[in-house]
Amino acid sequence: MKRSDGRQTNEPRPIKITTHYNKHAEGSVLIEVGDTKVICTATVEDRVPPFMKGQGKGWVTAEYSMLPRATQVRNQREAAKGKLGGRTMEIQRLIGRALRSVVDLEVLGERSITLDCDVIQADGGTRTTSITGAFVAMAMALDKVARERKLAKFPITDFLGAISVGVVQGTPCLDLNYEEDSQAKVDMNVVMTGNGKFVEVQGTGEDSPFSRQELDELLRLAEEGILGLIEVQREALGPIAGLIGNLAHADK
Amino acid sequence: MKRSDGRQTNEPRPIKITTHYNKHAEGSVLIEVGDTKVICTATVEDRVPPFMKGQGKGWVTAEYSMLPRATQVRNQREAAKGKLGGRTMEIQRLIGRALRSVVDLEVLGERSITLDCDVIQADGGTRTTSITGAFVAMAMALDKVARERKLAKFPITDFLGAISVGVVQGTPCLDLNYEEDSQAKVDMNVVMTGNGKFVEVQGTGEDSPFSRQELDELLRLAEEGILGLIEVQREALGPIAGLIGNLAHADK
Amino acid sequence: MKRSDGRQTNEPRPIKITTHYNKHAEGSVLIEVGDTKVICTATVEDRVPPFMKGQGKGWVTAEYSMLPRATQVRNQREAAKGKLGGRTMEIQRLIGRALRSVVDLEVLGERSITLDCDVIQADGGTRTTSITGAFVAMAMALDKVARERKLAKFPITDFLGAISVGVVQGTPCLDLNYEEDSQAKVDMNVVMTGNGKFVEVQGTGEDSPFSRQELDELLRLAEEGILGLIEVQREALGPIAGLIGNLAHADK
Amino acid sequence: MKRSDGRQTNEPRPIKITTHYNKHAEGSVLIEVGDTKVICTATVEDRVPPFMKGQGKGWVTAEYSMLPRATQVRNQREAAKGKLGGRTMEIQRLIGRALRSVVDLEVLGERSITLDCDVIQADGGTRTTSITGAFVAMAMALDKVARERKLAKFPITDFLGAISVGVVQGTPCLDLNYEEDSQAKVDMNVVMTGNGKFVEVQGTGEDSPFSRQELDELLRLAEEGILGLIEVQREALGPIAGLIGNLAHADK
Amino acid sequence: MKRSDGRQTNEPRPIKITTHYNKHAEGSVLIEVGDTKVICTATVEDRVPPFMKGQGKGWVTAEYSMLPRATQVRNQREAAKGKLGGRTMEIQRLIGRALRSVVDLEVLGERSITLDCDVIQADGGTRTTSITGAFVAMAMALDKVARERKLAKFPITDFLGAISVGVVQGTPCLDLNYEEDSQAKVDMNVVMTGNGKFVEVQGTGEDSPFSRQELDELLRLAEEGILGLIEVQREALGPIAGLIGNLAHADK
Amino acid sequence: MKRSDGRQTNEPRPIKITTHYNKHAEGSVLIEVGDTKVICTATVEDRVPPFMKGQGKGWVTAEYSMLPRATQVRNQREAAKGKLGGRTMEIQRLIGRALRSVVDLEVLGERSITLDCDVIQADGGTRTTSITGAFVAMAMALDKVARERKLAKFPITDFLGAISVGVVQGTPCLDLNYEEDSQAKVDMNVVMTGNGKFVEVQGTGEDSPFSRQELDELLRLAEEGILGLIEVQREALGPIAGLIGNLAHADK
Repeated sequence: MKRSDGRQTNEPRPIKITTHYNKHAEGSVLIEVGDTKVICTATVEDRVPPFMKGQGKGWVTAEYSMLPRATQVRNQREAAKGKLGGRTMEIQRLIGRALRSVVDLEVLGERSITLDCDVIQADGGTRTTSITGAFVAMAMALDKVARERKLAKFPITDFLGAISVGVVQGTPCLDLNYEEDSQAKVDMNVVMTGNGKFVEVQGTGEDSPFSRQELDELLRLAEEGILGLIEVQREALGPIAGLIGNLAHADK
Repeated sequence: MKRSDGRQTNEPRPIKITTHYNKHAEGSVLIEVGDTKVICTATVEDRVPPFMKGQGKGWVTAEYSMLPRATQVRNQREAAKGKLGGRTMEIQRLIGRALRSVVDLEVLGERSITLDCDVIQADGGTRTTSITGAFVAMAMALDKVARERKLAKFPITDFLGAISVGVVQGTPCLDLNYEEDSQAKVDMNVVMTGNGKFVEVQGTGEDSPFSRQELDELLRLAEEGILGLIEVQREALGPIAGLIGNLAHADK
Repeated sequence: MKRSDGRQTNEPRPIKITTHYNKHAEGSVLIEVGDTKVICTATVEDRVPPFMKGQGKGWVTAEYSMLPRATQVRNQREAAKGKLGGRTMEIQRLIGRALRSVVDLEVLGERSITLDCDVIQADGGTRTTSITGAFVAMAMALDKVARERKLAKFPITDFLGAISVGVVQGTPCLDLNYEEDSQAKVDMNVVMTGNGKFVEVQGTGEDSPFSRQELDELLRLAEEGILGLIEVQREALGPIAGLIGNLAHADK
Repeated sequence: MKRSDGRQTNEPRPIKITTHYNKHAEGSVLIEVGDTKVICTATVEDRVPPFMKGQGKGWVTAEYSMLPRATQVRNQREAAKGKLGGRTMEIQRLIGRALRSVVDLEVLGERSITLDCDVIQADGGTRTTSITGAFVAMAMALDKVARERKLAKFPITDFLGAISVGVVQGTPCLDLNYEEDSQAKVDMNVVMTGNGKFVEVQGTGEDSPFSRQELDELLRLAEEGILGLIEVQREALGPIAGLIGNLAHADK
Repeated sequence: MKRSDGRQTNEPRPIKITTHYNKHAEGSVLIEVGDTKVICTATVEDRVPPFMKGQGKGWVTAEYSMLPRATQVRNQREAAKGKLGGRTMEIQRLIGRALRSVVDLEVLGERSITLDCDVIQADGGTRTTSITGAFVAMAMALDKVARERKLAKFPITDFLGAISVGVVQGTPCLDLNYEEDSQAKVDMNVVMTGNGKFVEVQGTGEDSPFSRQELDELLRLAEEGILGLIEVQREALGPIAGLIGNLAHADK
Repeated sequence: MKRSDGRQTNEPRPIKITTHYNKHAEGSVLIEVGDTKVICTATVEDRVPPFMKGQGKGWVTAEYSMLPRATQVRNQREAAKGKLGGRTMEIQRLIGRALRSVVDLEVLGERSITLDCDVIQADGGTRTTSITGAFVAMAMALDKVARERKLAKFPITDFLGAISVGVVQGTPCLDLNYEEDSQAKVDMNVVMTGNGKFVEVQGTGEDSPFSRQELDELLRLAEEGILGLIEVQREALGPIAGLIGNLAHADK
């Protein structure tokens, strides 16, 4: 099969992570995956939400938004509508859940990290790109926390990346752009850790249910793609990359 | 492993579907899966949402809610809070998507079916129970539509059931109740058609990422469980069951 | 006059109260009055709303809702609209006020009882049916409180029932169903205690003002009807019925 | 009994109606009942709400609000809270219903009258004062409509007044001020027409149920009080008073 | 140039300030500027908003609203819409800012003054009229505070008035009424203290940018107009006027 | 005086305008003024808001937002709060008004241009930077419209820039950064056209009223600063700059 932008079925789009993109945030990146561009900032606060108080544990949460003209047709702002849409809530719950899976909340202590993922240009895969970028911003912020608050160990237990896969014109493909995504019969988002375990697998075949065999092939593509993303994260993080999972691995 | 309620790991809870539970709705059931009880009603309207107008196609959508005291601790009503929570939106989007996957919207014509799933008592698996019950209510309503509006063929292309699976105390288990669900390290909801294809696979390992092998075992359990649910649906539907997928299969 | 369902003008519809309908709530019933069906649950919490704090007194409040397809035509959910309608607020204020009139809030102490009245099928008289059912759920919950917290006496001072009356085709009638209610020129809801005193009298003649004589006849019908409802409550409550008003009467 | 302001139990507070209080509205008054002051304006629009369209009939509706400092303690604005409270909705539904009971909506034709009742100072009885004042503003506006649109007859069928009564320190009293109202065991609002028929009777004995005998005495007081109010309305309306109920009576 | 109501270009409309207009508020006026009428009440509370706590300083804030029929065409209530419009927010922020500029918040101590400005009839200049009236209500309330809480000195440092100016048919004019305002090419609101300093200058030339020379002439007209308004405030305040700026001037 | 970043009192911060920053929008820039960074996109739609319909004229509107971590401390999203704050509304109304002042809406025809100004990093002057950037994005979009829809002439009548000025430590300064802005006694935003006329002058001296002489000096600084900004706009626009005001000037 020939993909619309000439890529192989297992070929991801070019990815670029610019760190320290925001001068105020404790951690921040601009992540570009093809034409999808997301600003991810990490904010550290020395308090936790009410439902977590007094447990000696930290919290990681995420918010997701698209600028109105991130898309081909302008979207009305959710602030103007007065409420968050279902899609937004679903995505930000996913991002938060995914990031928490690789943070040792007890090591973090009663602090919270908020990851803001703001899509400034969208071309497919905004939720997975947000996760991949937010992980880097979070690691930068936690490095700052670990150093300033002298944490016993680094609270991130493993790398974490996310990518979309789907069945386009009958063929399983990696990292769909918007055009492919809108034609895909099956659409799957996969979040995986550095040691190859799944954190989230969300496949949907609204227009056409999928077989076990298709599912297996999609998971294989995603696995391969995410390992590639993690290499880019490692490079962007530099020395911080070396802290991830070091001690945490040992005593888990 | 011994499950808390004595079930085998691959043993579902008792299921009961009471049809014609509501005298006003075009289709309705009370579905009970263990102590989880959901009223599902199907409403037929001869119009479609604005974004679907003029396409000659129909629409299927769902709304989900829990009575405040469906749970052990009373939940504040979303109507009183003034907005739908993220969990509710995520679930009702899932139910709608799942049901649409087995409806031929062109055969349906410019009509919409709204499935209301109201949980009157919750004990785990409310979203999958809602899908399983809503399918029956929808089939009843579409039978009424098909007869009254003389549709060319029956618009449901296949059966559809849903179940939750998860890894509890290290063991993959079928159909988790609330107690198991709150301890599960991995939690997965699977929606499948009568001919064994997946419509939705949503697995999450927030507390503990899961391996490919665990994923495979969970999918196997879900597959077996859903085929059992479909037998109960078939029985509840009686003669209507015979219409499902009949003609649709032929020319697809 | 011949009523549409063959009843005499002073004949109520069949009433059925199923207790322990919900396994989580401290008190719960399914009440059926003709085709009107309401689930009433009572939730006990060991705290009071902010405006009641520090007075050593308890609080009783109610919430009311209809499932979207409780009615012939589907109603949009108030949670989806983002606000409670005027009718809902009016009804839940009425239910709360009515129940409080027979509870000794000082005996109750700094606790609150929330009555959730969810109409699962509507055929007229949903607000009065909610009051009659909520009274039973509340008594069950307070029995639990009285035993567990060793209250000095039982905090319910009297029975409480409610019924609707109205002028249909010129004739005062008891317990209107939906069809009658939509034709009625005058519509009145009456809430009364076991010893025959009025707690609420709400009569409205929007389409046709009513005379003092009609008012008198409506009150007479309501009085008779409510005494009948209280007999059913007494039976449903079994031994708990004996506690109501016992000590409270003595020292009031 | 001695009332706090020296009035007899059946003595109303002084009432003053200033017409043409607003230069923009089709009808307007400032009504003062004791220290309770309400601005009532009537707005005429040549359209009806969506649910009334195409029936050839008109509509009358009301909105009610209090300035934040109408009361002893400042109330937060409902506009700032972002929603109308239950009390406000209940009151404005009552005012609208009451006024519609004396308007022949078919004679009015497809027009709507909106009565805005804004309490600028509150000292008890704001809802009944609103009804009494809004009736006059409405009559002024309908006189304008009747003349300009050459209506077949005057659409108001009778006078309409409202007053509160209650049991204060064991004694039934007329027209309670705020101090009395907060002590009253029973509180009742009565809306009556010029020919002595009831439009609304809303009695509540939250703190103490009331007997049939008390109810009878309260209704008697209200009846007497409302006839007095109607005399003041008649005077305020001048020649317009003569139009009310003239033709309408004949063919009803 | 001939103004529509016969005034000279530098001639303000008649102004009238009625004090003690509301029996509950700590300070209150009805201010009338031509046909524009605003009720201003000042509420004193012995607490400050959360962001001001513990600083030993007070706070002054304002809220602004128009009755629905203050205008020629009825406006929908913001409480019914469920949110404040941009215009309202802009105006109430302006009023609060302006009043704070002449209050010594440290002398006031941890108290807050809320100025409610409710327009009961609008004919242009409602925001400037609100400021001029609210100043008087605030002074009355602070006089009460100063006497009852024995403040070290009177916390108001200077008089404060506001007026609108604009370019109508090419000519700069003072104190525009609604008709003039809707034709004006340039519209400016000026807030000034008793000693001739500017607190706010807000000029806008949406339909036609304005030159520096026009700006200068508008400011000159405003200056003259505000000094006139302050004379009326002084008279309305009587002896309280003497307290303003007395001590504060000395040590500033 | 020595400014905190070493600038002269009349020295603006470095400004950089990157055009074509977004691949979807009809016009777009990233504008950087010192550390303040704003993405401005212009969206063209072939329809106007309801209140403008049928007048043959176009409309220009703006929306403004800050990413949560654009500031030193994270701000809660307005979408999460469910409503726009007063500051946001005030700013977006200002931006829209300013841009409309240099667009010939009749030449534009029944089309609307929406300018989205999203602050990705804030360091003072975000509203004026938004105006300066949005003007360029709008010109790019209108160039596209003018060519594709063959407009009779180019609808922009003049250049438009905006800058903030203020009195810092007693000295009037140009283009305040955040640190200066928070200390400034007087704060003024000025919007001016290419031919030196004022569109908006908004000066506020909440903490300290300002004299006529200070006002004059601030306006002089702003005038000089804006002419500098317009040079940068002209360069960024390239050939499009030549279209601005060309024909429009002639026949105005």
